[in-house]
Amino acid sequence: SRSINLAVIPGDGIGQEVVAQGLKVLSAVLPQDVKLETKEFDFGAKRYHATGETLTDADLDALKKHDAILLGAIGDPSVPSGVLERGFLLKLRFAFDHHVNLRPSKLLPGVATPLAGQPEIDFVVVREGTEGPYTGNGGTIRKGTPHEVATEVSVNTAFGVERVVRDAFARAQARPRKKLALIHKNNVLTFAGHLWTNIFNKVAAEFPEVTTEYMHVDAATIYLVTQPERFDVIVTDNLFGDIITDLAAAVSGGIGVAASGNINPSGEFPSMFEPVHGSAPDIAGQGKADPSATVLSVALLLRHLGYDSEAARIEDAVSADLAERGATPRTTDEIGDALAARVSG
Amino acid sequence: SRSINLAVIPGDGIGQEVVAQGLKVLSAVLPQDVKLETKEFDFGAKRYHATGETLTDADLDALKKHDAILLGAIGDPSVPSGVLERGFLLKLRFAFDHHVNLRPSKLLPGVATPLAGQPEIDFVVVREGTEGPYTGNGGTIRKGTPHEVATEVSVNTAFGVERVVRDAFARAQARPRKKLALIHKNNVLTFAGHLWTNIFNKVAAEFPEVTTEYMHVDAATIYLVTQPERFDVIVTDNLFGDIITDLAAAVSGGIGVAASGNINPSGEFPSMFEPVHGSAPDIAGQGKADPSATVLSVALLLRHLGYDSEAARIEDAVSADLAERGATPRTTDEIGDALAARVSG
Ligand SMILES: CC(C)[C@H](C(=O)O)[C@@H](O)C(=O)O
Ligand SMILES: CC(C)[C@H](C(=O)O)[C@@H](O)C(=O)O
Repeated sequence: SRSINLAVIPGDGIGQEVVAQGLKVLSAVLPQDVKLETKEFDFGAKRYHATGETLTDADLDALKKHDAILLGAIGDPSVPSGVLERGFLLKLRFAFDHHVNLRPSKLLPGVATPLAGQPEIDFVVVREGTEGPYTGNGGTIRKGTPHEVATEVSVNTAFGVERVVRDAFARAQARPRKKLALIHKNNVLTFAGHLWTNIFNKVAAEFPEVTTEYMHVDAATIYLVTQPERFDVIVTDNLFGDIITDLAAAVSGGIGVAASGNINPSGEFPSMFEPVHGSAPDIAGQGKADPSATVLSVALLLRHLGYDSEAARIEDAVSADLAERGATPRTTDEIGDALAARVSG
Repeated sequence: SRSINLAVIPGDGIGQEVVAQGLKVLSAVLPQDVKLETKEFDFGAKRYHATGETLTDADLDALKKHDAILLGAIGDPSVPSGVLERGFLLKLRFAFDHHVNLRPSKLLPGVATPLAGQPEIDFVVVREGTEGPYTGNGGTIRKGTPHEVATEVSVNTAFGVERVVRDAFARAQARPRKKLALIHKNNVLTFAGHLWTNIFNKVAAEFPEVTTEYMHVDAATIYLVTQPERFDVIVTDNLFGDIITDLAAAVSGGIGVAASGNINPSGEFPSMFEPVHGSAPDIAGQGKADPSATVLSVALLLRHLGYDSEAARIEDAVSADLAERGATPRTTDEIGDALAARVSG
């Protein structure tokens, strides 16, 4: 008999509320014969204030024993900027070698977009997750003086770039349009830019069916608002991926529906799935958060574990729910109930 | 009697065409008693192919003798990516210490935007121009092998950050809404992020009338498409400024109308004014380019040299021209003629 052994990290703010709905829909969609076991972890601001810990080696060992991780959101204004981001979120991505950060963008029917003319948007960003300016390399001298110098070092390796570029080509190859865009800034960041561009061109030769293009990150932001339909698969560096996926989420229905997977394709470590949005402390505990992004992250999680038809059922349910949303706002719980009912129906 | 001694760099592609219109409007707007002297320089792809040179020390000495520089566009597909960008554009910005890269965004009446609902957009981005990831620091080892490592180092100094932050506060203070947003990614790029944030907060104490906010660059791209009216003045790092000003141009009428100034506020070196758009080789020589961005860059140039009323006349002319544009496309030359007629009228 099959089983899913899931680590659950509700985290801070609305994380608790949205994760509860994700689990509700997950239970509803799974066939009877699949045994779902969940273990909740208390990472986030509360634990940091109580213990000073963000993510210990023992925590990593405990998380490692699971098939996958579902995360709500981590972050609170009571914690200095960077502490939980670097000490928990990025630490976990790096420790578990989550080098494929997968962020699909699809504008579903009936969903509002800030763009005029309701364009067709259906692309996926493959963001590198373990290198680039996110490595934490760099430092500060003469801190707090008029002579302070602070550096940030973007580290890029052939190994790290090639594996994520290959992943993106394989995804492009498997999609009907078979298009892949590399986004970088190779005219200014020439060292990293040439590494990315050369590897991209080398791997392209092995995928003759995939149509490729290169685009500077600044130009890409223009196309994302003027011609978003042009994109199919995008591969990009960690920082550029961070920036363009928020923009991509904004134009394709908002961060209320943007899902993501932090994937370790080898399976050596569990992959982590989380909504792109943050902990939104301003609306936490009020039942106002839209759990759709978390529920769609559960779909990515299921697809990663091989439950393709269950993943598709969740995506269809969210799509139908969004299309039929009326003007009356529903609570987080009501949306979760509606989605659970749809997937089990 | 007054005089303007202008260095003119038409450059590549549509650069030639749009600069011709910029000069036409400049001549038309200047009062009789102002003597305009221009000297043209042949920088760009053609000279690079002929001589291998992009910008020599002798060139810099020659440029230095002018009151300001007007640039069309530099860049051509025949030149490898990075050669002209690093060898000319960035070299000039760094050599002449153009630390205030000024990029206003204003959605003028009658101008199309990809955003629904025609929002009110009127803000200015103060982009740092001489530091950050643009310094060219970094390198490559084991190039072309499976063990290649490429780094890019973002260098940030208290000196460099404070002067541009002060410039932005002064600009915010002088505007009716008096708002200033710092855009960075201080939760991940913690070394540079803390330097920027601390200096921003320190200088803020000297400008109690200015309302400030901090925003991560990823979140900023969301607000630029969902609430662009919220921005008044933005100050940011060189790379983030590059990215968000292209997005800002896209939402506020496109790069056909986006102007910029690379300013050395001390006046030690001449400042340079240029459209945000590139050389657009695909439409070069066909009279299809919109010269408005260059003409608006001439307005920034005039304001920088103290010709405030002439600058305003150009801005009003472009605004009126855009509002009255019919469906029939006009040539580059026709738009230039129309603008010249308006400013001299
Ligand atoms: C919270 C932050 C560390 C994170 C990132 O920059 O990757 C977030 O913005 C994201 O996109 O998941
Ligand atoms: C061409 C390039 C070097 C330049 C930059 O990145 O600054 C351009 O994109 C700009 O914004 O002026």
